[in-house]
Amino acid sequence: MQGCIEDALRRLEPDFDTIAAAGRTDAGVHAMAQVAHCDMQQDWTPFRLSEALNHHLRQQPIAVVDVAAVPDSFHARFSALERRYLFRVVYRRAPVTLDKGLVWQVRRELDVEAMQRGANYLLGQHDFTTFRSTMCQAQTPVKTLDQLDIEPCEYPGGIEYRFHVRARSFLHNQVRSFVGSLERVGRGRWSPEDLQSALQAANRAACATVAPPHGLYLAGVKYEQDPFATR
Amino acid sequence: MQGCIEDALRRLEPDFDTIAAAGRTDAGVHAMAQVAHCDMQQDWTPFRLSEALNHHLRQQPIAVVDVAAVPDSFHARFSALERRYLFRVVYRRAPVTLDKGLVWQVRRELDVEAMQRGANYLLGQHDFTTFRSTMCQAQTPVKTLDQLDIEPCEYPGGIEYRFHVRARSFLHNQVRSFVGSLERVGRGRWSPEDLQSALQAANRAACATVAPPHGLYLAGVKYEQDPFATR
Repeated sequence: MQGCIEDALRRLEPDFDTIAAAGRTDAGVHAMAQVAHCDMQQDWTPFRLSEALNHHLRQQPIAVVDVAAVPDSFHARFSALERRYLFRVVYRRAPVTLDKGLVWQVRRELDVEAMQRGANYLLGQHDFTTFRSTMCQAQTPVKTLDQLDIEPCEYPGGIEYRFHVRARSFLHNQVRSFVGSLERVGRGRWSPEDLQSALQAANRAACATVAPPHGLYLAGVKYEQDPFATR
Repeated sequence: MQGCIEDALRRLEPDFDTIAAAGRTDAGVHAMAQVAHCDMQQDWTPFRLSEALNHHLRQQPIAVVDVAAVPDSFHARFSALERRYLFRVVYRRAPVTLDKGLVWQVRRELDVEAMQRGANYLLGQHDFTTFRSTMCQAQTPVKTLDQLDIEPCEYPGGIEYRFHVRARSFLHNQVRSFVGSLERVGRGRWSPEDLQSALQAANRAACATVAPPHGLYLAGVKYEQDPFATR
């Protein structure tokens, strides 16, 4: 995605270098509310820039929803105070159709109460080594998780489970590792306390199978001053 | 869609004839909650039949969500007491990405209050000739509309307008004709009273441009005894 947007920017300014994005969205993850910043040489109005970018992105499943001018001190990644992610899991026997590629479909009904009890062990400040990809480049595995709520929703012929996750920042694959492990709690293979033990092990090998990327959405990024708010 | 399901049934019983569906879903319309019935020669358990059908439908964007045995008196179309449709309209400048093909994107913000006032003129029993395709084969253009509510919803970078429509039965293209005409009210080209005049004209030429099929979802079918309820 980043490469496509940079290519579009190079159509506008051939010497364009790079954009910096607030949240990592690996291949298959949906960047619903991604925020990125960049430097431009020309003096674009935000409206003209977004229209020009969407024109050049029209063959891609990518759209620039809004553009705003920001002070030089703004950095999409380092100025972010909070990231919100959504992970969508659907249980039903029949294959999903309209949501194909947009949810993780599981074949067993999940116990929301057990998952929520397990999730509560993850809240607060912890060493999250268990839920961190071995590729992760963060300097420390200690992070503070502010929210992990599991919301059951109606779904035609089944049930959807929406995982709402919020923190200042995340480790690589942290949300997908959480959801993979919570699914194991939801289907009764793990107790909520097994999840707590996995956390306390601080050992990547204690993590359940990581959930697939296509259920994951970057749902929001918070700044002290929202660049898109009052204009 | 009907043809694909009949093909799958013919893989199970070569002499299979036809299915009868509750609601018309033209090409591009999403049959989210379609109900159909058919006669089978063999004594299938519902679970095995749905599994076998979904196996044969796996290359298609179609899934059988549930199967139930019904009495001979049940007819998916003629026993239906009520159909519910959902029409999704999205306003934003940037192209939609995740919902491509799943919503009608419009380029102007719509006035929900004006649309709702217009919609209220359509409620109850009327001659709906204005909102009926010239291809419609119904015996009478007189129908009773029980609900037409417009719900504004959050949408990334824009607004979604959900049209909730409910009646015992509908004329061909009736919902899409409603939404096309209400969009005209929403962007101020028509007053709500212009919509009332269009209804009273009972003339297909008085209808605004019909909304595209890909925003439309058959959202529910009601029977005196829901075949999928208590089993």
